[in-house]
Amino acid sequence: MARYAIGVDFGTASGRAILVDVADGRQLATAVSEYSHGVIDDVLPLDDRRIVLPPDWALQDPEDYIRVFRETVPAVLRESGVDPTDVIGLGLDFTACTMLPTKADGTPLATLPQFRANPHAWVKLWKHHAAQPDADRINAVAEATGQPWLDRYGGRISSEWFFSKALQILDEAPEIYAAADRLIEGGDWVVWRLTGVETRNACVAGYKALWSKRDGFPDANYFAALDPRLGTIVDDKMSREIALAGERAGGLSAEAADWTGLPIETAVAIANVDAHVAVPAATVVEPGRMVMIMGTSTCHMVLSVDERSVPGMCGHVQDGIIPGYVGYEAGQSCVGDHFSWFVENAVPEPYQQAARARGLDIHTLLEEKAARLRPGESGLLALDWWNGNRSVLVDAALGGLLVGATLATTPEEIYRALIEATAYGTRVIIETFETHGVPIREIVACGGLAEKSPLTLQIYADVTGRPFKLAASDQASALGSAMFGAVAAGAGAGGHATIEDASAAMARLKDRVYEPIAANREVYDVLYREYLRLHDYFGRGGNDVMKTLRALRAGARAAEFGAAESGSGATASSSTDAAAPIEA
Amino acid sequence: MARYAIGVDFGTASGRAILVDVADGRQLATAVSEYSHGVIDDVLPLDDRRIVLPPDWALQDPEDYIRVFRETVPAVLRESGVDPTDVIGLGLDFTACTMLPTKADGTPLATLPQFRANPHAWVKLWKHHAAQPDADRINAVAEATGQPWLDRYGGRISSEWFFSKALQILDEAPEIYAAADRLIEGGDWVVWRLTGVETRNACVAGYKALWSKRDGFPDANYFAALDPRLGTIVDDKMSREIALAGERAGGLSAEAADWTGLPIETAVAIANVDAHVAVPAATVVEPGRMVMIMGTSTCHMVLSVDERSVPGMCGHVQDGIIPGYVGYEAGQSCVGDHFSWFVENAVPEPYQQAARARGLDIHTLLEEKAARLRPGESGLLALDWWNGNRSVLVDAALGGLLVGATLATTPEEIYRALIEATAYGTRVIIETFETHGVPIREIVACGGLAEKSPLTLQIYADVTGRPFKLAASDQASALGSAMFGAVAAGAGAGGHATIEDASAAMARLKDRVYEPIAANREVYDVLYREYLRLHDYFGRGGNDVMKTLRALRAGARAAEFGAAESGSGATASSSTDAAAPIEA
Repeated sequence: MARYAIGVDFGTASGRAILVDVADGRQLATAVSEYSHGVIDDVLPLDDRRIVLPPDWALQDPEDYIRVFRETVPAVLRESGVDPTDVIGLGLDFTACTMLPTKADGTPLATLPQFRANPHAWVKLWKHHAAQPDADRINAVAEATGQPWLDRYGGRISSEWFFSKALQILDEAPEIYAAADRLIEGGDWVVWRLTGVETRNACVAGYKALWSKRDGFPDANYFAALDPRLGTIVDDKMSREIALAGERAGGLSAEAADWTGLPIETAVAIANVDAHVAVPAATVVEPGRMVMIMGTSTCHMVLSVDERSVPGMCGHVQDGIIPGYVGYEAGQSCVGDHFSWFVENAVPEPYQQAARARGLDIHTLLEEKAARLRPGESGLLALDWWNGNRSVLVDAALGGLLVGATLATTPEEIYRALIEATAYGTRVIIETFETHGVPIREIVACGGLAEKSPLTLQIYADVTGRPFKLAASDQASALGSAMFGAVAAGAGAGGHATIEDASAAMARLKDRVYEPIAANREVYDVLYREYLRLHDYFGRGGNDVMKTLRALRAGARAAEFGAAESGSGATASSSTDAAAPIEA
Repeated sequence: MARYAIGVDFGTASGRAILVDVADGRQLATAVSEYSHGVIDDVLPLDDRRIVLPPDWALQDPEDYIRVFRETVPAVLRESGVDPTDVIGLGLDFTACTMLPTKADGTPLATLPQFRANPHAWVKLWKHHAAQPDADRINAVAEATGQPWLDRYGGRISSEWFFSKALQILDEAPEIYAAADRLIEGGDWVVWRLTGVETRNACVAGYKALWSKRDGFPDANYFAALDPRLGTIVDDKMSREIALAGERAGGLSAEAADWTGLPIETAVAIANVDAHVAVPAATVVEPGRMVMIMGTSTCHMVLSVDERSVPGMCGHVQDGIIPGYVGYEAGQSCVGDHFSWFVENAVPEPYQQAARARGLDIHTLLEEKAARLRPGESGLLALDWWNGNRSVLVDAALGGLLVGATLATTPEEIYRALIEATAYGTRVIIETFETHGVPIREIVACGGLAEKSPLTLQIYADVTGRPFKLAASDQASALGSAMFGAVAAGAGAGGHATIEDASAAMARLKDRVYEPIAANREVYDVLYREYLRLHDYFGRGGNDVMKTLRALRAGARAAEFGAAESGSGATASSSTDAAAPIEA
């Protein structure tokens, strides 16, 4: 008798559900729900007031997440015609760190009238980058006090992570911090809403909140050194009970059963991180094969038996991706976003007209033209830091660079140079892993960009010198979530006993393999050496022009906001001054 | 009784005549003739064969120059209604170094059937950049043999100059070199065609052909050291008789009188360089005030009583601009061209649509948006080397750079950063002059870009900290040529005795002065320091990535042309290999 699982993948702009057969991973139906407020990075969506957000802010509305369940789960049941009682489990994955403050019963502060006009009450999305001063303080104090966990994260904590965001709330909105009974990841919050049970998943706790299986969280003295009010944050607003991927968080509540059309008590898996859950869906449950989720940004994951310190990576967590292995994560913060920026801001009209005339997506046209160029022919080299650098350098204040332009430089040459730059960024990550004892033999890619751009995969293979394969599912995260849903249900219920079993049964690769081409590798080796030299010069303090430019920009913006008198001066105002939300 | 002069200005894409009153410079008529073959940088304009030019080539058709006289002089006579017998003189100016090989009677080799399919028979335009290996050899041998004239040119000779181009002909087409009885500047050649008298003007001889009033040309031993066949080039193919600006070259020949509608024997002035002739037309006949002709590229000219060595400038020539003074020249090779490149290659469709909807030129729209930004607000910094660097570094192999881009970077921010980059380039030139004893108190700008872009002039004033004024005539070069025509005719014929007299009578400034704004200067001082640091790092050997990229590009192109097996390899083929014209 056929059994099914549902995976729900919460992305940056929308949530998506798929319904799959647990025997072979066959996908029977899929449905998407766009978040009605999307990414809130400009003005809070309020009817009665206009609250303008400073640069680098990115918020979301928690109500949008609940709507995903209400819209997509009934839709996949309808589309597939599957009897809801044959659905044995539901798993979900979420962007991370995406966190919010709630009351003790899970009510988000953003939904309470007294807090709604305060941006700090809303969900801080993973790409909210306004907590950099807080991340700087976390790093400085950790270094000064010799925190042992710092090594696990390559020596630097990101502004995107949990305590950076929590500290920003405390610094800038102490009343919100005080009113928050819980500070919780979006993924754990939606599981709470589904089951009525508050759980905390090991993956996000380990990668984003400095937790480890062996040592737990940083101690209270460290937090108190950051701010006396922060000393008891873990016991006051979080939890020390951390659950592993594949465990059962609970059963669907009556309310959630009503939202979804699934039976009460359907097994719900512990939440997971969107990127990590794709690893077993990409057939990877062992060391040596890196999974890359290539979308707006790229996430790199690899497993290892041993614990190694790899500088500048996003972190490694025992049992963090696949129970039994150390899971390593790295990231590139600007990949698909990079190409979208280019298309929106730098592709001339005749190219758009040509694409329309031929019925092509503009990316397809650019890729076609860029594919005709040989390696080195553009004469261009770029540093892929339009959105900072998330791995190895871990510095959100870095900026993009393009060098070698001439009056003959064409849009497709720049487009190709941007693709190549992200490939060099990937090679830096791979080589850093290998140098520190985490070997990477081949890459399995998934995600929208990998699906859409054969040129990108070939360039990546040529630049890294490694074969690139492609996960068969075009919804690897959602599939992975469904697999964990099947594991949460367990073999006894017709699911799977382990994620390895689920991967063996439900995950596949595509046939096409992108092998490195020797002649291209030669040229790219030369270009990569040049990339590395620029990477180190601009990224490791040889020339801090990118930071100077960012400070001048912040100063000019602050002057524009009328926030300070410092805008026209050479010394920019501090980021904190420039970053206060204003009512305008 | 009113007397008139005609000035003819030969630009890169067209020639333009103006007819002015010699008493007050009042412009009565103007006419333009576009060159029918424009800039030939792709394929030779032949009916029967397809000769493809390599990258960096730029040729012209000498017949296009003669058509300028035939079309524009009759047109200004017609338009003004002036009696041709009241026109007392004609002067002309030309791009430089723009040179061609001819027979002894002035017939261009390009017009002879046996040479027409050889690109080296055609006019090499100033921006023909394929003679870089020849320029490198000229510089290396000059340094090795301690040539005293090297200092006058800031220590480096450009690939654009006369002997670089001559040596390229000898190297790559010895049969053309042998067949050429004369190698001559375009300006001197058209004067020859007008008067039947071959003359050589001091301005171009001094700035582009290593001649000085005191020492003449480099000696034969030096030329022989470059190539034994080149030892007698000056006596064989050039002339040691050099005439000063304002002298009378001769009178119009019967043939040229027929072309133009002017009387036979109308005074024709010695040819001049387009940029230099604008100096007196911009009211500058004394030291301390720099003239900038701002167009596709920018030329900077300043006068001094003393001879000073200024490193990396285009040169200084006694009597080269205004008789009695040392004339200094510097150049920026990518200014208006830069903005045109940007508009053609990097401005997105919605901007073009918005400009059309409002009936605006796209540059006007971009300038309007860029003008709303404060200094520093773009967060961007660029090196203005899209077309290499012509002054201070003197290196055509340098490439453009943009740093600081983020996912929020807009087209107008890039546009403004490109304008600012050219302003920093100007400041480097001004400061280099001042450091070496040539003071610059204020700037008088002219040329199309100065006419069209108030934002550019304000940014230049803010960045350089000096007031920018604007020549009243929007045709400063043509006016200057007319002024020299009036001097060639002489005071006795109703013209002027000296260029100073002509300037006092005929040249004016506009009322508006662009004064530096103190608050903007502060920010630009910070940005300029960052610019200088990048300038020196990438321009003085700290990091030769731009050259590596250019070599890889040449290698890839060569491989594409099928010229060599070296394209896919890391070592690019030499520029010479990559640069051979091919019949395709």
